[in-house]
Amino acid sequence: MQVEIWSDVACPWCAVGKRRFEAALRTFEHADDVALRWRSFELDPSAPRGHDGEGDVDYVGRLSAKYGTDRASAQGMIDRMTATAAEDGWRFRFDRIRPGNTFDAHRLVHLAADRDRQDQVKERFLAGYLEEGAPIGEPATLQALAVEAGLDDAEVADVLASDRYAEAVRADERRARELGISGVPFFVIDRRYGVSGAQPAAALVQALEQAWADRSTLTVVGAPPPGHDHGAGDACADGSCAV
Amino acid sequence: MQVEIWSDVACPWCAVGKRRFEAALRTFEHADDVALRWRSFELDPSAPRGHDGEGDVDYVGRLSAKYGTDRASAQGMIDRMTATAAEDGWRFRFDRIRPGNTFDAHRLVHLAADRDRQDQVKERFLAGYLEEGAPIGEPATLQALAVEAGLDDAEVADVLASDRYAEAVRADERRARELGISGVPFFVIDRRYGVSGAQPAAALVQALEQAWADRSTLTVVGAPPPGHDHGAGDACADGSCAV
Repeated sequence: MQVEIWSDVACPWCAVGKRRFEAALRTFEHADDVALRWRSFELDPSAPRGHDGEGDVDYVGRLSAKYGTDRASAQGMIDRMTATAAEDGWRFRFDRIRPGNTFDAHRLVHLAADRDRQDQVKERFLAGYLEEGAPIGEPATLQALAVEAGLDDAEVADVLASDRYAEAVRADERRARELGISGVPFFVIDRRYGVSGAQPAAALVQALEQAWADRSTLTVVGAPPPGHDHGAGDACADGSCAV
Repeated sequence: MQVEIWSDVACPWCAVGKRRFEAALRTFEHADDVALRWRSFELDPSAPRGHDGEGDVDYVGRLSAKYGTDRASAQGMIDRMTATAAEDGWRFRFDRIRPGNTFDAHRLVHLAADRDRQDQVKERFLAGYLEEGAPIGEPATLQALAVEAGLDDAEVADVLASDRYAEAVRADERRARELGISGVPFFVIDRRYGVSGAQPAAALVQALEQAWADRSTLTVVGAPPPGHDHGAGDACADGSCAV
């Protein structure tokens, strides 16, 4: 069974969703049969690459402007998000967050998939951005975090210096649009079932179980040819062939 | 879009189905987006490995015994199957067919998938068995045909001398049982749609088009958490995160 998770790196709820999916897998009976693939989604494709300036980012100010609230309300929202994430083991530090463009991070997450280190690299990028104030759009940051997560130093440098995996990122984003995904995290099971947002682990388990139960349900299409009464095209079975 | 075709090598309708699927792909608008995978199905797992004896096999006798008809009727069935296959370009020669166990052939078809030669090897085995009287269960036959189709001589020998890919064959066959596949060829599109038997190319095109149209239709599962009115779990969108 294949699970694809569309998500961004600069995305607190994506980090929470990752933990909840991990918890769901610990409960799900057929976890060994689940292949996980991280898919790319940029929440802000127009973001500048790096964090400009030396000081901290005013995340409270950004949020209060976005929602039209005062700073105290915005701080309250951040505190609730931080507290929720803490229940899942994250130590978000919005006070030192450094926004950036995540396109290059997504390219490296695709490289990591080819090297069987995708989950490790995704995890390292999320922790760097959300907990450690790592400027996630800057090549030096990505280089260090990706290598820490097990990728080859020279290969990471080569990807960062080229446009390798750019098309893979864009393909993921096209697919997201086709599927109607407008926010992340978004979980897709066997290209058939969707779960939107960082829902509780129990809801993810329920989705996995439903998908598992239905995984052998095929919709049989195509009419049998005229004159055939066995409900299918010409076929062979049990060592012989109907003619 | 992924198409998996469960099929055997010792299977006339599987050969016909292969041609019809190829014809369907020539018509289908999104053929470039179709990834094809041949899946294993043994019509007669208990068949002895090789063809015993020197003489030709009495296929007419086998068929008349199977269907309880006289030899003339059995010959008529064979003639009709041969004529149908000829319309798709096959030159079946039932007069010189040499049955055998196809398990090793399936193992090599799996090796071929890893070497990007799966379709070529599948084609070569079908032609060898159905047109050329190749004893398809015998290692020397498989070795020669697989190398002709582009596989590496030493690697083929290594697979034949070991049990490599045996588990992959069995996994395909387990999956066939789970999906309720009792005869082949059987086409599965995106693990969602099934087409049973060697149906006409037009029916296969119809199935491909239906699957294509529905490929972005997700069933959204999982209830939103209590108190959330945005119909989904906590999510980030448009560069910001609902809290």
